[in-house]
Amino acid sequence: MIRVAILGAGRIGHVHAANVARHKDATLVTIADPFISNAQALAATWGGTAIADPLEAINHPDIDAVVIGTPTHTHVELMLAAAKAGKAVLCEKPVDLDIHKALAADKALGEQRKKVMLGFNRRFDPGFAEIKQRIQRGDIGDLHQVIITSRDPGLAPMGYLETSGGIFRDMVIHDFDLARWILGEEPTEVFAVGSRLFEPELEALGDYDTVMVQMRTASGKQCQINCSRQAVYGYDQRLEVFGSAGMLLNDNLRETTVRHYSAQETETRGPLLNFFMQRYTDAYRLEMEAFISAIKEGVALPTTVFDGCQALRLADAAQLSADTHAVVKLNEGAKDA
Amino acid sequence: MIRVAILGAGRIGHVHAANVARHKDATLVTIADPFISNAQALAATWGGTAIADPLEAINHPDIDAVVIGTPTHTHVELMLAAAKAGKAVLCEKPVDLDIHKALAADKALGEQRKKVMLGFNRRFDPGFAEIKQRIQRGDIGDLHQVIITSRDPGLAPMGYLETSGGIFRDMVIHDFDLARWILGEEPTEVFAVGSRLFEPELEALGDYDTVMVQMRTASGKQCQINCSRQAVYGYDQRLEVFGSAGMLLNDNLRETTVRHYSAQETETRGPLLNFFMQRYTDAYRLEMEAFISAIKEGVALPTTVFDGCQALRLADAAQLSADTHAVVKLNEGAKDA
Amino acid sequence: MIRVAILGAGRIGHVHAANVARHKDATLVTIADPFISNAQALAATWGGTAIADPLEAINHPDIDAVVIGTPTHTHVELMLAAAKAGKAVLCEKPVDLDIHKALAADKALGEQRKKVMLGFNRRFDPGFAEIKQRIQRGDIGDLHQVIITSRDPGLAPMGYLETSGGIFRDMVIHDFDLARWILGEEPTEVFAVGSRLFEPELEALGDYDTVMVQMRTASGKQCQINCSRQAVYGYDQRLEVFGSAGMLLNDNLRETTVRHYSAQETETRGPLLNFFMQRYTDAYRLEMEAFISAIKEGVALPTTVFDGCQALRLADAAQLSADTHAVVKLNEGAKDA
Amino acid sequence: MIRVAILGAGRIGHVHAANVARHKDATLVTIADPFISNAQALAATWGGTAIADPLEAINHPDIDAVVIGTPTHTHVELMLAAAKAGKAVLCEKPVDLDIHKALAADKALGEQRKKVMLGFNRRFDPGFAEIKQRIQRGDIGDLHQVIITSRDPGLAPMGYLETSGGIFRDMVIHDFDLARWILGEEPTEVFAVGSRLFEPELEALGDYDTVMVQMRTASGKQCQINCSRQAVYGYDQRLEVFGSAGMLLNDNLRETTVRHYSAQETETRGPLLNFFMQRYTDAYRLEMEAFISAIKEGVALPTTVFDGCQALRLADAAQLSADTHAVVKLNEGAKDA
Repeated sequence: MIRVAILGAGRIGHVHAANVARHKDATLVTIADPFISNAQALAATWGGTAIADPLEAINHPDIDAVVIGTPTHTHVELMLAAAKAGKAVLCEKPVDLDIHKALAADKALGEQRKKVMLGFNRRFDPGFAEIKQRIQRGDIGDLHQVIITSRDPGLAPMGYLETSGGIFRDMVIHDFDLARWILGEEPTEVFAVGSRLFEPELEALGDYDTVMVQMRTASGKQCQINCSRQAVYGYDQRLEVFGSAGMLLNDNLRETTVRHYSAQETETRGPLLNFFMQRYTDAYRLEMEAFISAIKEGVALPTTVFDGCQALRLADAAQLSADTHAVVKLNEGAKDA
Repeated sequence: MIRVAILGAGRIGHVHAANVARHKDATLVTIADPFISNAQALAATWGGTAIADPLEAINHPDIDAVVIGTPTHTHVELMLAAAKAGKAVLCEKPVDLDIHKALAADKALGEQRKKVMLGFNRRFDPGFAEIKQRIQRGDIGDLHQVIITSRDPGLAPMGYLETSGGIFRDMVIHDFDLARWILGEEPTEVFAVGSRLFEPELEALGDYDTVMVQMRTASGKQCQINCSRQAVYGYDQRLEVFGSAGMLLNDNLRETTVRHYSAQETETRGPLLNFFMQRYTDAYRLEMEAFISAIKEGVALPTTVFDGCQALRLADAAQLSADTHAVVKLNEGAKDA
Repeated sequence: MIRVAILGAGRIGHVHAANVARHKDATLVTIADPFISNAQALAATWGGTAIADPLEAINHPDIDAVVIGTPTHTHVELMLAAAKAGKAVLCEKPVDLDIHKALAADKALGEQRKKVMLGFNRRFDPGFAEIKQRIQRGDIGDLHQVIITSRDPGLAPMGYLETSGGIFRDMVIHDFDLARWILGEEPTEVFAVGSRLFEPELEALGDYDTVMVQMRTASGKQCQINCSRQAVYGYDQRLEVFGSAGMLLNDNLRETTVRHYSAQETETRGPLLNFFMQRYTDAYRLEMEAFISAIKEGVALPTTVFDGCQALRLADAAQLSADTHAVVKLNEGAKDA
Repeated sequence: MIRVAILGAGRIGHVHAANVARHKDATLVTIADPFISNAQALAATWGGTAIADPLEAINHPDIDAVVIGTPTHTHVELMLAAAKAGKAVLCEKPVDLDIHKALAADKALGEQRKKVMLGFNRRFDPGFAEIKQRIQRGDIGDLHQVIITSRDPGLAPMGYLETSGGIFRDMVIHDFDLARWILGEEPTEVFAVGSRLFEPELEALGDYDTVMVQMRTASGKQCQINCSRQAVYGYDQRLEVFGSAGMLLNDNLRETTVRHYSAQETETRGPLLNFFMQRYTDAYRLEMEAFISAIKEGVALPTTVFDGCQALRLADAAQLSADTHAVVKLNEGAKDA
């Protein structure tokens, strides 16, 4: 049994707590949150004890693994503390909003970085994962182009946006990771365009509501990302990949396959799974399974702090590109940075 | 906490055990199976004690509810014993292969019949359930016609078929229940055609591999069922309903929405969820939730032994119709039988 | 150049006139209609001369082929006259509403029956034709079951219904022909159910608004037809065939493939092609091409008066079955009748 | 009757000849091609006389309208000659491969430019046209982003590619026109990436086989184009538009809606309409109808030489961007150029 502590009893803490509790090989031992009543509520539903101090959980001898779902600015500190205590770590993205701090954390981890997994849940989504596997087994030959559609159902509250780091570091960072993972190469040219088409208040934050990104790798592979903070028709998460021998694409998810035909609208289908916790339910579960199983079997974790740094680099480059209306070049040797 | 005993540690016992174990309001207390090693294996995975004698489980004071997943010929005896012991019961279909024995069981249950739910899992499938709800809220106006597609991926072993009661009582019985539930009325005319188009050995059993059923209710609603014991392309489970104001239809389920385009075949999609335990994973889970929640809240169970008897009547009528090449009429007052 | 006369300048006459006029190997010579202004209007658009008397057109030496789109009760007389005059004939279905008169016509044609084609346009629909071709080339192995969905967008005027011969002879007759063609065998058992679920006035006509038909061939192949005189969501024309090695199905047609996603309805698609002349535009064109090309190349016409008689037999059987609530058996040797 | 001359009896000449011949309000009078046997073959099929000299056709008094389907380098000369002769012109794209020559032609046309329509056939495709109409009627609110997928089924012969002007001026030019038309604004920033991922010989031509383009308008609207000279799965032509109130997307076209399910591949659909003349059959017909009807009714032609120049500007910008790996800015006031 892998004994797990959840740090942070917020929205994402709930998701992880339920997945730990239902896992055959894991036990939910502790939930830590300074807002102790949140931790208590979560423990009442899924078991484990509730404590206030995350460091107490990290350093407790009965804990094998730590899941970090706390606010972004605490990630590095908690990650390093857990690594120092010899615990396996699953940390929510991003590592940090500051690339220098993120790179420093990676360096500070040293050999312990092997025990830290970054929560890029989309890699575990059954649809995206099938596309990755099919590329790897050659279903579309050599990969040429990747197109990622990533549109949130609705604008987050302004209070959240103020500390989010901006659309590229907060939202598109998932797509940058997906792009790197699917491309199998590092992008070396980034051109982003950003607009404020429906939320003028974002100007004060230097942020955008609607962006597009175009990237190229050194070998000439190409990638486009389209992104909006508000898709009124629901959470739009799609992927298309083109290769020398074919194309793969996935579609959005719905609760059921029921279609309705009426005199008013010939054919309608039910709403898209609309919230990231609903849309990526399977992805979060499979992410936790990958984490638990890698610990249990002593194999390498599937994502790393380095992945987190690289996605952040791309986000920074995109922000700069959109701000300056110019292409941003990235070192081809980024991998060695 | 509802304390549950599972009777029968076979395939369906596994499904129910997992769903009880993962349910927040239920505890898996005991698994009973004369093949004690099967019960032990199941208990090792999902918890609870393993015993050999189902009656011991039924009569244990720590048990609130009993799930019967034993061979068909034991259903009535165990159901009556559990009811006598005051336990809530979830019994797999069919009640029995003999309509007289099934009706006698319903009579013998008396007032206890309120505590017995029959495992017509398809009513809990999210797609079929959405269609039922949409009919009830008027999305297609008055219901006119129902079409059920029900095709197994492959022929069951001959040993199973010999004791199955035939395609109508074993397989189409699910569709008869679905038809009654969706129609909201009892069919009063049944015409079935049966053929042996790929398994001539079924002749010795008086059974068919390919059947169609057409039914009519007293008010003139109509229903068609198409059924095969072997669909090489996978488990085909669909429903179409037509009404005065529209149509509803659902499609089969797949693991993902990924589509592949290649030079050989323009567009291909992944395989259908191919096995009933995979296809109806959600349905079994939701069925168990409905059972547990009805017990907990003291409300009526959603399916009854009567439902089991009515579906069996229709199966008997279809068998007779196919054998005699004639329409079989059913008493409009069947409900009072 | 095949020189063509169109008899009847009504709705279907327009369709045929346009297809003749656009055909490279045909010339529209004459349009005959007792309502001479209708014939004149048609000739003004598509060329040719307008006359009142169909027999004059039939007997004109400059005419090679005659297309009969006149009222049903005149079909036999005109067909026989044209055959006597040595002309090729494309006659709209049905041959006649009276099976005896239809059979007598077939007999009276004698050797000339080879020059008479019956307008079962659906056989020329690209989707249905592809399914037929795929069955023939073995894509689904041995054919087991056929399901036909045939639902008109809206109820025809009562005046039309009064002389239509009833839903089976007027509307389902297309599906009976499609069933025979796809099955490749003659049905020998017919069970139909008929209801008046939305138009009670049909009772006075002994007609139904909603019907289902189930049929079986001597070799055990099976077929179901579902039919309604009113599908508020549009003209619903689908076909599913099941075989030992797979399934084929087609879907309805739309003007474009555009899909709309909005906050109100997640995904909507445009209306179905809603009127038979719009839905079967290609079928009518390809039917005419088949007619012209068979004449030109001197090969057998693809449909016959016999086909018309057989479809009518099935319609009569279905009517009797629905009226009597009993299975109607047809002579296996129907082909020799 | 609009009397039409077709200049150029090649592939595109055939398309236009058939559409003129079948049009109720047009007559095909002359086909001109220096390869007189080509002109004769076309005239034999669709009518009209065959001549060698296009200027003779242009200046013939019996001609109202001229369709230019000759090699690109002759477009400007013939267009100017026809305009001088007072004829209406439908000229295939591009105006010319040299933007200066194209702009000079537009200037030289002067007031006669109103009589010259450029053959951007995709604007007449029913799917793209429906999307444009739905945007205009507000179905998706304010337009935010446009994504165009434009992938040819296979690489054109090297001989063709050598004089094609490159992928941006030859192939993506259609998408640049589509982008301008759908955006309703001029792009002011262009970033293109180009790679040679499967045809290294294109390096000698300074051309690419795989490109992506990202553009922004002055008001912040955004557009991405993905393009390949070879999509082994067929001719891939799609459009997605996102707005404040929803999304519209269309899918590729197929011959029929038939789907095949088998043991090997669960669900397969037939090939995409694979060749531009097959895929855009309706678009070419509707383009011709728009041309004829605008002449007949004396209203403005729907596309202009200016449109051709603007698309060419974007192609030039994209070529420069891909070659220099930098963003290319376009004058906002391009419209006045």
